[in-house]
Amino acid sequence: MSKNLTSRAEDYSKWYNELVVKADLAENSAVRGCMVIKPYGYAIWEKMQAELDRMFKETGHQNAYFPLFVPKSLFEAEEKNAEGFAKECAVVTHYRLQNDPDNEGKLRVDPEAKLEEELVVRPTSEAIIWNTYKGWIQSYRDLPILVNQWANVVRWEMRTRLFLRTAEFLWQEGHTAHATKAEALVEAEQMNNVYADFAENFMAIPVIQGVKTESERFAGAVETYCIEALMQDGKALQAGTSHFLGQNFAKAFDVKFTNNEGKLDYVWATSWGVSTRLMGALIMTHSDDKGLVLPPNLAPSQVVIVPIYKNDEQFEAITKKAENIIKELKVLGVSCKFDKRTTHRPGAKFAQHELQGVPLRIAIGPKDLENNTIELARRDTLTKEIVDMEGLPIKIKELLEVIQNDLFKKAFNFRENHITEVDDFETFKKVLETKTGFISAHWDGTSETEQKIKELTKATIRCIPLDSKIEDSVCVYSGKPSKQRVLFAKAY
Amino acid sequence: MSKNLTSRAEDYSKWYNELVVKADLAENSAVRGCMVIKPYGYAIWEKMQAELDRMFKETGHQNAYFPLFVPKSLFEAEEKNAEGFAKECAVVTHYRLQNDPDNEGKLRVDPEAKLEEELVVRPTSEAIIWNTYKGWIQSYRDLPILVNQWANVVRWEMRTRLFLRTAEFLWQEGHTAHATKAEALVEAEQMNNVYADFAENFMAIPVIQGVKTESERFAGAVETYCIEALMQDGKALQAGTSHFLGQNFAKAFDVKFTNNEGKLDYVWATSWGVSTRLMGALIMTHSDDKGLVLPPNLAPSQVVIVPIYKNDEQFEAITKKAENIIKELKVLGVSCKFDKRTTHRPGAKFAQHELQGVPLRIAIGPKDLENNTIELARRDTLTKEIVDMEGLPIKIKELLEVIQNDLFKKAFNFRENHITEVDDFETFKKVLETKTGFISAHWDGTSETEQKIKELTKATIRCIPLDSKIEDSVCVYSGKPSKQRVLFAKAY
Repeated sequence: MSKNLTSRAEDYSKWYNELVVKADLAENSAVRGCMVIKPYGYAIWEKMQAELDRMFKETGHQNAYFPLFVPKSLFEAEEKNAEGFAKECAVVTHYRLQNDPDNEGKLRVDPEAKLEEELVVRPTSEAIIWNTYKGWIQSYRDLPILVNQWANVVRWEMRTRLFLRTAEFLWQEGHTAHATKAEALVEAEQMNNVYADFAENFMAIPVIQGVKTESERFAGAVETYCIEALMQDGKALQAGTSHFLGQNFAKAFDVKFTNNEGKLDYVWATSWGVSTRLMGALIMTHSDDKGLVLPPNLAPSQVVIVPIYKNDEQFEAITKKAENIIKELKVLGVSCKFDKRTTHRPGAKFAQHELQGVPLRIAIGPKDLENNTIELARRDTLTKEIVDMEGLPIKIKELLEVIQNDLFKKAFNFRENHITEVDDFETFKKVLETKTGFISAHWDGTSETEQKIKELTKATIRCIPLDSKIEDSVCVYSGKPSKQRVLFAKAY
Repeated sequence: MSKNLTSRAEDYSKWYNELVVKADLAENSAVRGCMVIKPYGYAIWEKMQAELDRMFKETGHQNAYFPLFVPKSLFEAEEKNAEGFAKECAVVTHYRLQNDPDNEGKLRVDPEAKLEEELVVRPTSEAIIWNTYKGWIQSYRDLPILVNQWANVVRWEMRTRLFLRTAEFLWQEGHTAHATKAEALVEAEQMNNVYADFAENFMAIPVIQGVKTESERFAGAVETYCIEALMQDGKALQAGTSHFLGQNFAKAFDVKFTNNEGKLDYVWATSWGVSTRLMGALIMTHSDDKGLVLPPNLAPSQVVIVPIYKNDEQFEAITKKAENIIKELKVLGVSCKFDKRTTHRPGAKFAQHELQGVPLRIAIGPKDLENNTIELARRDTLTKEIVDMEGLPIKIKELLEVIQNDLFKKAFNFRENHITEVDDFETFKKVLETKTGFISAHWDGTSETEQKIKELTKATIRCIPLDSKIEDSVCVYSGKPSKQRVLFAKAY
């Protein structure tokens, strides 16, 4: 299986596409731009969901569910938001099919069943949610509202790629309402911190926290916080965003509240989301030419046991051993699968588990039965060792923690080695093409310069890092005054 | 709050609608027929999801995700299925909005952005899934496929009611593929058993397992298994269905496999689902004129503590006590909330928790501090007692189990008292109008009789119970021969 995988050096993009399909994560569907998330891929997404959901609840949020459809009149209410998404809206115009009189056995849209008002399939839910919040909020006592939604959304993209950019994708979108600007800002920052914590400590993906420039901001936001990750090919990937929406949506939907001084004011808002795009980030951060590499936190099975035997007697003895290991690992909270399929040879099983990124593989053969040992193979380093059964479960548990940390460190070092401080535009262009990665450079703060650099190099400003030092300098492109460095990169 | 709730005797339907809104479970949205599931309602749905998901995985199923949209040409491939759902399909015809030249600031559908092929918003996913399975199945080694999907679906209903019948609803849909008819039948029966187990032992809702008659069968199914529940107003509610689809979808989508004898055959299929409709079943099985009554298994908080105090000192002492109780309950796996809001008086809190169905309410006042007691109130029986703090957590845990069982028993007795064996049509009509509930009667097995009875009485055959006795008798309507009794009822 894995021998068919194109290498990253050969063609990174092809490697990615092949890996997603061959590792059974997802595939394209009969619907243009929409993917099927296969059971193995979905099991990884479920692990992300569970951890994020726990973190959201720990920070005081509750889940709710709002309609899939947004009536056009609500959709257009917040002008910038509407403008930002109008070009990629799937629109429902009819509510019935009927037999096609010209085509026996076929159906056609019933022309009589035209909707009075078209419905937009949500590309994001601010409009429908703020229209709902209007009925929920009268006084400061009704605030804050801290709600999250797990949902599917649709953005009609012309060029799609599995997980990275699909017409339909799964995500969570938090939508909160607050009595003060300060509180909403704290919320937006808090949720960006939650995303950074999740990416780094759960997914082992190092990220840079920052804010977007005006042109890269979410349509309708006053400020967009983000976490930016760096993929192995030196391109950046926006892994999550958290928006301070000011009073824009409250004004568009007329959501006012009586504050504790008895005065009417518009409500302050945030929204924040991460999506199945994180699957793409996961794949492109850790995987290698043999296939997927999974941090133990995200592996559907953290350990797999492959039996190697020549007769029933050996198989039974190995099974007994394997079942013991599984039982002991379960007590330690480690998931382990016994791959006893008779339809595949051990070699094919090894290749499959390698391709699918199982963090640890145990092989047990006749010699291991004699010596009370097993063979333990690490997916991340591709190293093997013979290990005594004595104390094996504890060793495995510790090793999984080591792997989780090692993957983060490896990705962190790669990222750190791919942030280059640049002070002239020639070097800028050269670094971008040869070394790749993030370029830390001064920028004059104008959209014109940003746009010009994008046209010339395809690099965009990924973010103004939150920890960016304030200093007097000049823009790498225009030579005009600049107060701080920002991060440029080509991006997914 | 609860004093405003219409009583069930006065107007059952109004009582239901008011309860759903006042208990903060759901509300109507700006989109015709689509609901907003509010955080309290969604928290109950999450408890259902978690338990069902556990049960699906325990029976070997994995989750996956398939597209929201079904191209019309795929939708119409399985003729009966298409015919069954064509009249309630939301259809996407365009993929872009643009500025309306005649209406400053408004948007309109871009006439240039018409889809070549219309997309149906899935009313159910057999078509898109079987079109996908075609690529997954070559040989018997690829079978069975045991997949479930948690998703939203849209069926354009003309008359909608919160949870019971909405244009968009949330559900799970299992779709399995098998090498033999026998295996598929076992799967369909197994999943119906899972639903019955879940309804009775988790939701405390007694159900009757049966199969549907031809006219009530799922469009495209060979056999539809179902669980039928009885609501307090004597109307039946279909709470879950599991379909044996034969080879209908395999034939429509040309999904063949090589069996273990090397011969090509069509694959056998099942599908099975439950939806947010279960929220309606939950409400109408247990609740009363004071509001929601929740089985402890489904309560977002199983216990709530309300402090009653006149000064800070008392509040602090009560808080200390409450925090101890919460801590000890947590160890026992019991969820408990401390309602220390200063914006509401104890009376208002009592009313709210009653309305929202919290199974147990603890009140702690100054006297309780003196006597080392608390006041414990049961939501289901509306009884109160003074209880010593000594051994309180264990007592609460046991009491919650008692409540869970009592709710089931109460609903079971109601249901048993509302199954009436009837042997003549005059009595049939009378029982239906006065006593209500299920009528167990002989039926000649024809759709004509079934249809006629429906026209005359609005009662439908809810199911042919799996445990129905085979005996020689005559149809309650036509007098023609009948082999077994079936269950009639008016239904939601």
